[in-house]
Order: sequence, then structure tokens, then C-alpha cells
Amino acid sequence: MTGSTPALFTAADYRARMERAARSAADAGLAGLLVAPGPDMVWLTGYTPTAVTERLTVLVLTPGQDPVLVVPTLEAPDAEHAVGASALTLRDWTDGKDPYDVTAALLDGRGRFGISDNTWAMHLLGLQRALPDTSYASLTDALPMLRAVKDAAELELLAAAGAAADATFEEIRKVPFAGRRESDVGHDLAGLLRRFGHSQVDFTIVGSGPNGANPHHEVGDRVIERGDMVVLDFGGLKDGYGSDTTRTVHVGEPTEEERRVHDIVREAQEAGYQAVRPGVACQEVDRAARAVITDAGYGEYFIHRTGHGIGVTTHEPPYMIEGEEQPLVPGMCFSVEPGIYLPGRFGVRIEDIVTVTEDGGRRLNNTTRDVVIVD
Amino acid sequence: MTGSTPALFTAADYRARMERAARSAADAGLAGLLVAPGPDMVWLTGYTPTAVTERLTVLVLTPGQDPVLVVPTLEAPDAEHAVGASALTLRDWTDGKDPYDVTAALLDGRGRFGISDNTWAMHLLGLQRALPDTSYASLTDALPMLRAVKDAAELELLAAAGAAADATFEEIRKVPFAGRRESDVGHDLAGLLRRFGHSQVDFTIVGSGPNGANPHHEVGDRVIERGDMVVLDFGGLKDGYGSDTTRTVHVGEPTEEERRVHDIVREAQEAGYQAVRPGVACQEVDRAARAVITDAGYGEYFIHRTGHGIGVTTHEPPYMIEGEEQPLVPGMCFSVEPGIYLPGRFGVRIEDIVTVTEDGGRRLNNTTRDVVIVD
Repeated sequence: MTGSTPALFTAADYRARMERAARSAADAGLAGLLVAPGPDMVWLTGYTPTAVTERLTVLVLTPGQDPVLVVPTLEAPDAEHAVGASALTLRDWTDGKDPYDVTAALLDGRGRFGISDNTWAMHLLGLQRALPDTSYASLTDALPMLRAVKDAAELELLAAAGAAADATFEEIRKVPFAGRRESDVGHDLAGLLRRFGHSQVDFTIVGSGPNGANPHHEVGDRVIERGDMVVLDFGGLKDGYGSDTTRTVHVGEPTEEERRVHDIVREAQEAGYQAVRPGVACQEVDRAARAVITDAGYGEYFIHRTGHGIGVTTHEPPYMIEGEEQPLVPGMCFSVEPGIYLPGRFGVRIEDIVTVTEDGGRRLNNTTRDVVIVD
Repeated sequence: MTGSTPALFTAADYRARMERAARSAADAGLAGLLVAPGPDMVWLTGYTPTAVTERLTVLVLTPGQDPVLVVPTLEAPDAEHAVGASALTLRDWTDGKDPYDVTAALLDGRGRFGISDNTWAMHLLGLQRALPDTSYASLTDALPMLRAVKDAAELELLAAAGAAADATFEEIRKVPFAGRRESDVGHDLAGLLRRFGHSQVDFTIVGSGPNGANPHHEVGDRVIERGDMVVLDFGGLKDGYGSDTTRTVHVGEPTEEERRVHDIVREAQEAGYQAVRPGVACQEVDRAARAVITDAGYGEYFIHRTGHGIGVTTHEPPYMIEGEEQPLVPGMCFSVEPGIYLPGRFGVRIEDIVTVTEDGGRRLNNTTRDVVIVD
């Protein structure tokens, strides 16, 4: 995570987010929130430490009190430069001091706290030791929707990131595929994402032929051949907000079976998209997409959930998965990305980022969802 | 963390490391070790997932039993390709299953476990919930020296990384400084580290004039001026092992005071280095370096510990800090990096990586420690 939120957001924005988070914590019966460096801290304060180390940095939000950032003395000068710094108090600690005692002194000493998912276990253990009468819940469990509903400025940034990913696809479909390695095409994708404004590339999946049947295959040395299906799934951060799109292309003319599988995935993706509207449970998006694939006889080959949220990270709540009953709310933003994976043969996945509007969904990716033939 | 250990290590090496770790756990009274993606997992298995997400991946080491890697089904094909995969069993779990139950089934259900420092808090909370009769200690607290003593192959890789960092310094001292921004010189440093074989650049600190007085200042837009002291602290990973060196240069001729402060830091660094030999406590290295600076009247301006270990990360135990009584052991590898920071004016730091030998220390950085005059 090297991205930082753009200067578009002011100290007042961060103050409002921190107040909202503290209120949400109180509403959820929590005594406060403990936020480690990472996406939650970026979203709440605009601050990203140069490096995340064993030295404790933690934002303490307690309802009714001013936010405090506990920070190593060495890093305090950098923290003071964060846009949100004027909306909080810095409490620095020096090598040799116990940072958990410093943090404990800011807390009530009892009660349940939300703690950001990616806080290091060593820090959670330090807090549990310093405050034996406290308990903890991960922020995603306690306040899963804290960052899920995006405001207008955030949606604009997500749309811009989506447009940059679309521009990347329009360029990548022109490059030669046959005879080049997956890693060469992956390198092209990364270069294009950066050319279109991404500061951070999170993934450039190029799954050709049988490699496409492994949804998490990144790029390899396999030389792409004429006749291959190729899954292209790429994204990252542009101005601090994420992109993530997938298209499946074919090197030369696809067979009838390949076209049929691609059509089923396209219909599944459309069905998932059409299910998006306020009040619908997340799992309904998964069910709608999955039903198309299951009805076509490929249910056992759709081996992952249908989608995940996106914002200051490329992977966050809400999740479009069976069992997730969270209702959709306007401003939520997530992927709809069904796929079919035929082991040892090929895979197809089609993915758009979709945001929930008052009366349905809006796609932030808009390149063709037909099978694109490449050279 | 995108580095992976080189093919230099075999499945047998990883098997031996996992066995040693499990034995160390038993010796420390632990029921087992839980290892998340990151440096511990790389060191034990050679496996680095493409991305670290909310999906649980954890290596379970229990004394007397074969190692098991719990991994999301989607990522199992990648995990199978890790060099150490043949030395362990994969246990995959599918979206919708509870991965903590899967992990709990591998554990005794009671006892104390070591867990890698950087495991996500959300995963530790999941394990604590699934196994209420267990307790946990961070791996650094429980087995701080697990990775601290390097074998001959590791020392060779660390020496090669150090030599690449030295080559970087020899080139950077030739570039123009005056009139360029710190960020320009930082960009040069990153390019040189890569040119000399680094796959990952972790930091390129360029602290000119008053910025040098903030030990964690990275690079900024400040234009370097004639007459500036400039702290250059840079490193990263080459073939999976770390480099980290600091030299302080001067743009043009330094003043008498600047020379004096530089001399004190050089003497402090030499004293720290001379203190290194088997059996000496880590804190003695800190004390030796600090005494020189304190005796010269600058004690209050040396605001950090003297050093940190290095290996598959650029920041790990052992720490050269007051209170650390761990005795040095041949094969340990760490920085010796005292500094003096005069707020608002300038800073000086000199840093070498030092490894402990049978009869003293050996520096892995060998560029001049005199003040280097640049243009």
C-alpha cells in the first residue's frame, strides 16, 4: 500500500469521517476503534506511514473524545504532514517505552473495541496484555460497512479509475498475444495502467489456456498460443481509489464450446448486474449470477464468490456471497465477476465494478463484454 | 513484500527450517506455531501468495507432526508451486467455509501458540474464537531468534546485497546534488539498487539540511543546496535478502562543526562495531555507540536505537537497544547505525550491516565512512 488519498479531501472531510466512525462504534455498542496503518487509516486520516514496522502506530477513536494518533517519535514529523493531522492529536512514544501502555492510557480499560483487520497480531496481543478486561472485534466484523458507502467525490475517483482500466483494455486488445509470454502481456498491462494514471498496480492476471482455469493465477512464463482463451484481470489504485476489471479474449477464432461458455458467463454477469438495487441483499447478486451458470450445467466450475467491494483498496466489504444478508445501499461499489473454470483446459471470467444507485446499478466498466478476438 | 527466496534453497532446506522451528517451539513450551504470509512464511516454505487478503492462509507447525498449509482453494495451485510445498501438506478451504474451524481441527485445542507478528488481527480473533482455551504469543516475543542466526548461504546472499548497496553508494556520490530535489536523488538511488540486482527497494531516504534531522524523513521536494549535509539511507531486497546502509555526504566543503559531528558519529559507529563479538548482549552494542555520542555532549540528539536485524526483511530481531540482553551468536546479522540529529539544522547517520563471526564482527558494507564531498 503506497497510495495516498488525493488532496481532493480536506482536514474537514477526515474530521467528519472520524466523527462518523466514532458514532458508528457507539451505535454498535463499542467503546472505541483502534485503527492501524493501512486502508482504514488512509481513509480516516489521509496518513500512510513510510513503512509498516513492528513499531506501533494506531489511531484511537473513542465516542465523545478527540481522535488521537499514537505514533513512534521518529515518525511524528511525517504524521504531522498528513492532511487529516490537524483533526487529531499526536501522542508520540520513544524507543524503549511500552507503546501498549501509552495506548492503554487513552482507553477506558474495559469494554469491546473494534480493531482494523490488518493490525498486526503482535499489537493486538500487546493491547490484550495491557488491558486484560477489554475484548476486540475486527473492524470488518464490527462495522463492515464503515467505508462501504462512497460519497460523490469517492464515486468520481472510482469512476475515473474504472475509465483508466477500460482505456487499458482498449489498448491491450491491440497488442500481439500469440507467441508472447503471459508475463510480457502482464508487463504491458502494468505499463498501460500506469500510463492511464494508476500510481499502484495491484494485479495483472494473464491466464492463458489451462492457466485461465486457475482464478488466481497471476502471470507465468507460458507462451500464449493461437487458439487460447486468455483471462485478463487487472487493476490497482489511481489517485488513491481502486480499479478492477476482467475481460476474456481469444487468440483467433474461438470454438463453438468456447463461445458457449463465454456466453454463459456474460449472461451470468448481466444477471448479477441486473440484480443490483437498493435494499437487495448482497447474496442475491451472487445467487442471480450463479443461477445462470448452474442452470447451464457448469455450477461446479464456478468456484468463487461473485464479487467484493472496492474503494481505497481493491478488495473489501461488501462481499457478494451466499450468506451475506447486508442490503445494498446507494453509493456501495463492488465487483460482479462470475466465471467458469474448466481444469486443464481454459477459464472465462467477466468483471465490472458496479455502484448502487437510487434505482438500480451503474457500471464503472464499459468495454464490450463480447468475446474479443486478438492476434 | 514481493520478494521471494531464490532457487538456491531446496525443499530439504525448508523442511529442515520447519523442523527446527517446531523443535524450538516445543523447547519454548509452545503447542505449535501459526505462520501467516510474510517473511516468516517465505523463510519457512518459500511461499509468497500473490496478494495478502482477508482470506486466511496459515502454516501450522506442531511438534512431532507434519507441517500443514491452510490455504484458500483459489490459491492452492500457486501454493503447490512453492519450493517448500513438497515438504508440507496443503489443506484448502472454499469461500463460504469457516477457515478458523479448518485450522482449529489441526490444533490440540488448548495450549499456547506462537503466531507470526504480522498475522492480521482479524485472523487472530477468529482463532481465539474458534479455540477459546488457547493463548498466543507473537513469534518475536516467543521465538525472537527463530530467523536471527543465518546459515552460510544466507550470509552469502546478505553479503551480495550489501555489496550491491555499496556499488549504489559509489555511483550516487558521482551524481549532482546541488539544485536537484531530494526526490530526484531518491529516484537515482532506487534505479541504482535495481541496476545492481535488487528486486525490491524498501527505502531511499534523502535527508538534506534540516530534513536530515528527522531520521525517518523519506524524500521530499526540497531542493538540495550547496552547503547541505545529506543523509542517504537506502536498501531493499536482492535475491530475497536485505541490504541497508547509510552514509552522510556534504555538498561542498563542510564547516568545522559539521566535520566534528560527523567524526563523532563515525567514532560511535566504530565503537558499536568493535563491541560485536559472540556472547556480548545486544544492548552492549547500543551502549558502546551511545557512550561516544553522550561523552561528546550530543546524547540527547541520538534519538533511536543503534540497530536492527536483517535477513528476508530489512527490519527484524535482534535489536541493538538498551534492555535487550540476548547474547550475540555467530551468524547474526544487524545494522549498527548511530546518528546525531540537530533539529532544524542537519543530521548525520552512518550505518553498516554487521555479521557476528567466531571472533568478532564482519562488516557487509565497506564504502568509506569519511565525510564524502559531493557536487
